[in-house]
Amino acid sequence: MVFDESYFARHMNPITGSAIRDIFKLLGKPGMISFAGGNPSNAALEPEVIAPLAKEVIEAAGPAILQYGASEGWKPLKESAQKYLTNIGVPCEENEVLPTEGSTQGFDILLKALIDPGDVVLVEDPTFLGALQAIRTYHGIPVGVECDENGLLPDALEAAIIKHKPKLVYIIPTFQNPTGTTLPVDRRVAIADIAARYGVIVAEDDPYHDLRYEGESLPTIKSFDKEGWTVYLASFSKIISPGMRVGAMVISIPTLMRKCVIGKQSSDLHCPLLTQAIVDAYLRKGLLPEHLVRIRAGYRDQLDAMLKGFALFPEGTRYIKPEGGLFVWAKLPGNKNAVSLLEPAVESGVAYVPGTHFYAEGGHLDTLRLNFSNSPTDKISEGMEKLSKVINNN
Amino acid sequence: MVFDESYFARHMNPITGSAIRDIFKLLGKPGMISFAGGNPSNAALEPEVIAPLAKEVIEAAGPAILQYGASEGWKPLKESAQKYLTNIGVPCEENEVLPTEGSTQGFDILLKALIDPGDVVLVEDPTFLGALQAIRTYHGIPVGVECDENGLLPDALEAAIIKHKPKLVYIIPTFQNPTGTTLPVDRRVAIADIAARYGVIVAEDDPYHDLRYEGESLPTIKSFDKEGWTVYLASFSKIISPGMRVGAMVISIPTLMRKCVIGKQSSDLHCPLLTQAIVDAYLRKGLLPEHLVRIRAGYRDQLDAMLKGFALFPEGTRYIKPEGGLFVWAKLPGNKNAVSLLEPAVESGVAYVPGTHFYAEGGHLDTLRLNFSNSPTDKISEGMEKLSKVINNN
Repeated sequence: MVFDESYFARHMNPITGSAIRDIFKLLGKPGMISFAGGNPSNAALEPEVIAPLAKEVIEAAGPAILQYGASEGWKPLKESAQKYLTNIGVPCEENEVLPTEGSTQGFDILLKALIDPGDVVLVEDPTFLGALQAIRTYHGIPVGVECDENGLLPDALEAAIIKHKPKLVYIIPTFQNPTGTTLPVDRRVAIADIAARYGVIVAEDDPYHDLRYEGESLPTIKSFDKEGWTVYLASFSKIISPGMRVGAMVISIPTLMRKCVIGKQSSDLHCPLLTQAIVDAYLRKGLLPEHLVRIRAGYRDQLDAMLKGFALFPEGTRYIKPEGGLFVWAKLPGNKNAVSLLEPAVESGVAYVPGTHFYAEGGHLDTLRLNFSNSPTDKISEGMEKLSKVINNN
Repeated sequence: MVFDESYFARHMNPITGSAIRDIFKLLGKPGMISFAGGNPSNAALEPEVIAPLAKEVIEAAGPAILQYGASEGWKPLKESAQKYLTNIGVPCEENEVLPTEGSTQGFDILLKALIDPGDVVLVEDPTFLGALQAIRTYHGIPVGVECDENGLLPDALEAAIIKHKPKLVYIIPTFQNPTGTTLPVDRRVAIADIAARYGVIVAEDDPYHDLRYEGESLPTIKSFDKEGWTVYLASFSKIISPGMRVGAMVISIPTLMRKCVIGKQSSDLHCPLLTQAIVDAYLRKGLLPEHLVRIRAGYRDQLDAMLKGFALFPEGTRYIKPEGGLFVWAKLPGNKNAVSLLEPAVESGVAYVPGTHFYAEGGHLDTLRLNFSNSPTDKISEGMEKLSKVINNN
């Protein structure tokens, strides 16, 4: 017998792996300036802080930290995450907090709990590529909802809910990936209201919440939700460490929490206790606020360097200036094609992600996503110069 | 609107969470002797070894260990796991190794790659409860295949394959959970042959491989597989630490590896780098062999204490004496019912898991699973005495 494609689950057919991660493989070339990823800056990572913390939490907890733990999470982290979340505008009780492997796993578990084959999941158009992939993994059908430069349009959401009767909507309201847009307060209120009116779960994915470089922090959609329709997905990846894979879901409906705990149990039983304990200790010692001040300053400079670089782009280029996060979204003028431009760009030493990959239905070949967090400012300027030449000359 | 059961994915309906984990909640009572879990002994965990190792690996790797990593795994762990696996009889190349969050996640990812709704997955009858739950999570249908006191019957497997045409068979060949049985070599050869003949993937889950207390180590099913039909699931949970959630899959078919990497990507992006690096350092420093000598001696004593305790059980009780692992399986005589006996047992201060939970179709109410790794020998003797009284008197 020969193992072939017919063995694979049908839902895996449209999934060919993250285009971003495939682009990563092109980046081995020395000197490549990558605007393609979504990694935090290495300068924002603190091995010198985390190393002694790791030793300390193991010594403090003893064998318990190496033993099996509860699927519901490491209790001290549930406590400190509850305080952190309440503080950033997600008031919750400890038993509403479920630690996850980044917000990636939070959304995966929510899909596992809710999605039957063929179910529509509404998403922003464009949205995070990984979310599209995760929805398809559960045989769900992602359907994009129209957005403008301020994010999701509530009227379009309501119309899509009436048309598709979904159980679930996925939204990144703050410094959205890929567009960098932030949903204004009135739209957040409207979305919470629509969710309750039609009985739709809103997955509010908010991994960039603390990475604001200007303007005032906005209340979460979850803060306007009185009945529990919003599931909040928090992540410590962008503010402490992505490699530790620690995030937390806030689920206010007890029966939904129970299903998600069961789903987590069959996914990986529980998150590693050590990484949960390190994040707990980091929060408990109050290390986060000062760290955020420092990394925000660095990211603000990087963002400024990137925005300046657009002066060299062809006339008619449009881009969205974000107030935070890690990405700038651009739309090229005329019939410029960001997909076909990628190869000459990589050849000239600069990479990005074509915007088409972020749309549920593809298309939008004139768009691209640029990440500014993973290169120093001088390299950002150099990369924008190279990229502008490629765009101007092709 | 009101959130109710109708929102949940249909496949989640038959899943009510691990009965074992629900029993755990009864165990808060001080002095309870639990034969219910599957935890390694706290005495087999080494926080004093792991704590400095954690600090060391972070200092050695720097920011890279806190940054995003590859879904394919942390390269040093892939290297050292490849050596470990080849050494225990799973010859493989580094690119055939995919680190996972314990073997739990390995099986979850394999199901994600292969199983469409309604697909039958063959399992040993009885089998690991978590496997039944994971299969149902992917809308699969677990079907039990007959076993005797030496494990799965190859003829019964072949008949079931002809009848159900499955893509996947799940087997724990060594010190099986729950029965403790070990599949003889001739059956391993036969199963590898049947898998290749009918083109069926065998998930060989082998978390207890190194916990042998007597007899000789047997070759894995994977070692008889020439075409890659066997996917080997290894775990460091039972030999280093379950709380770190580190295991590894060995996948020899490149297209299947690719699908599993994509599945892993949407589950949690990658395993935490820190826990992968700790296990790598532990293996690389050669700490495992001596550790295994020590923990095997402890477990052998615990097993002996439990086996002695059966002398007090009612005449006609049958049990399987395992050569390793963590469990003893027993069958009560007459019309004794292990489900209804659980409540008086817990009241008298001793807990176990009724065997019925491990059967795909339930039934077998006269069976029970006893774990011996999580109590000291005197408590095991005391617990067996208490349990025998409850069984004799009810």
